[in-house]
Amino acid sequence: MWLMRQAGRYLPEYRALRAKAGSFLDLCFDPQRASEVTLQPVVRFDLDAAIIFSDILLVPHALGQRVDFVEGEGPRLEPLAATAVRGLDPEGITRRLQPVFDAVGLARSRLAPDKTLIGFCGAPWTVATYMIAGRGTVDQAAARRFVLLNESAFADLIERLVEASVGFLLGQIRAGARVVQIFDTWAGVLGEEAFEQWCVAPTKAIVERLRAAVPEARIIGFPKGAGLRLERYVAATGVDGVSIDWTVPLRFARDRLQPQVAVQGNLDPLILATGGGALDAAIDRILAGLGGGRFVFNLGHGVVPDTPVGNVERLVARVRRWRG
Amino acid sequence: MWLMRQAGRYLPEYRALRAKAGSFLDLCFDPQRASEVTLQPVVRFDLDAAIIFSDILLVPHALGQRVDFVEGEGPRLEPLAATAVRGLDPEGITRRLQPVFDAVGLARSRLAPDKTLIGFCGAPWTVATYMIAGRGTVDQAAARRFVLLNESAFADLIERLVEASVGFLLGQIRAGARVVQIFDTWAGVLGEEAFEQWCVAPTKAIVERLRAAVPEARIIGFPKGAGLRLERYVAATGVDGVSIDWTVPLRFARDRLQPQVAVQGNLDPLILATGGGALDAAIDRILAGLGGGRFVFNLGHGVVPDTPVGNVERLVARVRRWRG
Repeated sequence: MWLMRQAGRYLPEYRALRAKAGSFLDLCFDPQRASEVTLQPVVRFDLDAAIIFSDILLVPHALGQRVDFVEGEGPRLEPLAATAVRGLDPEGITRRLQPVFDAVGLARSRLAPDKTLIGFCGAPWTVATYMIAGRGTVDQAAARRFVLLNESAFADLIERLVEASVGFLLGQIRAGARVVQIFDTWAGVLGEEAFEQWCVAPTKAIVERLRAAVPEARIIGFPKGAGLRLERYVAATGVDGVSIDWTVPLRFARDRLQPQVAVQGNLDPLILATGGGALDAAIDRILAGLGGGRFVFNLGHGVVPDTPVGNVERLVARVRRWRG
Repeated sequence: MWLMRQAGRYLPEYRALRAKAGSFLDLCFDPQRASEVTLQPVVRFDLDAAIIFSDILLVPHALGQRVDFVEGEGPRLEPLAATAVRGLDPEGITRRLQPVFDAVGLARSRLAPDKTLIGFCGAPWTVATYMIAGRGTVDQAAARRFVLLNESAFADLIERLVEASVGFLLGQIRAGARVVQIFDTWAGVLGEEAFEQWCVAPTKAIVERLRAAVPEARIIGFPKGAGLRLERYVAATGVDGVSIDWTVPLRFARDRLQPQVAVQGNLDPLILATGGGALDAAIDRILAGLGGGRFVFNLGHGVVPDTPVGNVERLVARVRRWRG
């Protein structure tokens, strides 16, 4: 059991540390503080895993794109032109991302041996949507148009992002992450063929290269919104586990996904935020639906900032009671 | 063959008329002009169907909520408080929506007999998301929270929207619409149980009441983003046809949906906007995948405003050539 975005603004100890840390990027690149933030939810809730405090946009930053995090508005990047793709150089990005690997190493050294440390990256498609639009968008239309108008430049971009992601994940694994998760937050918006080309194929390439280098690494994929393409994603990419969002029917996950891989999910983060009896019922439903197979309890997306800490305590206690 | 949002800003004749018509709402409530706009794409492209020019937010407007359309920003509503739900009165809304029925009647009288006229409404869930948030949102979080925090008020709201939608659709059918489509644009964001409660059940209620009143009406449902819940939606709601977005795999639609209902879709509107050989290939793929069963060629969502008219001409010619 762990929770996506478990280290974050809903925790008072995070907000306290964040106030001293300068910008969001400064915090990500400060190994001491990033590792401390990483451990905060495990210290408070005794969760089974810590996920390194970092961001999927550190990769474009390390590739040389300008990235800022605007308080209360989210990320702002200098939008990438098709002609600028070939200027992005994955060589040497591991040097620029070294502070993240240092944070992983520090977190690992301070974490109890029975706790898992999880590393992560954004999937190439999702990272590309931010690089192209320069920000989060409703429907990723800018990136989807870019693909149609500049397909070869886009293919080149994805190739560079695969290369960079492999370096980023390998660095985290070598520093102490035993599991890595690939977040493809905007996978759901892709059409059938585009999903194969820009979600499945790059993820498969990353998985293969990680396996070749570190056979014992465990890899979780999170193609959010993939719905009808989840089975295909699991079968074709070779991930060990799949994270499912809150819209995935539990019976489908149990019957079609769990026989193939471990399933992680899928409580609606808004149910965690609002709490009460509806939270208990939703937890029990998930445990009854997926608890019989290979299963990691988690949310269907990240913890939202106004989540009361008491609701997370209630969640953790309830899952523990079930586990016995 | 017809195209969602086929009457709209991408057409120069629409922009010309729009410039003379005052506000967007004024245009919707002007039967002469609304019927003229409705017919424009049929006149220009000889499509098989016209869809009445109107908006899903006319229903909240008729229920007494303040609705404005802000140029270039989309709709703005006075956000609905839980305590205000019981003030919404579906009685008498057909009187307030009479100009739409008049527009339907005018359009029908000017349309060739072999052309179909389509009426529509927003599904209760989707309309509720706008009523609660007061605008379009990325993840419909405001409405999803409202459900969790005020379930009985929300159930009351949905009931009133079912009532209003039945009145709105029946008025359109009686004025000359032979087919109606129920747009559930934000169905995909609902969790498994919420999808049953707030998408499937209200749609089923609307379908049953329409059938009881007008057995010969044909009803298309469009639960955008429903993915893994599409089969359930089709089986449980009793719709005659289902419109599928561009993310639905064609083989799934052919094998699992077409045996049950007519399938409508599903070209990516951005492929229509960008055109070229990719457009031809995407059209051919859809025709090959779905053309063997009950099928209505359409987009996977609405025409986007910067779509070149020439691309629509190319699309229509290609589908006609296939049809022979």
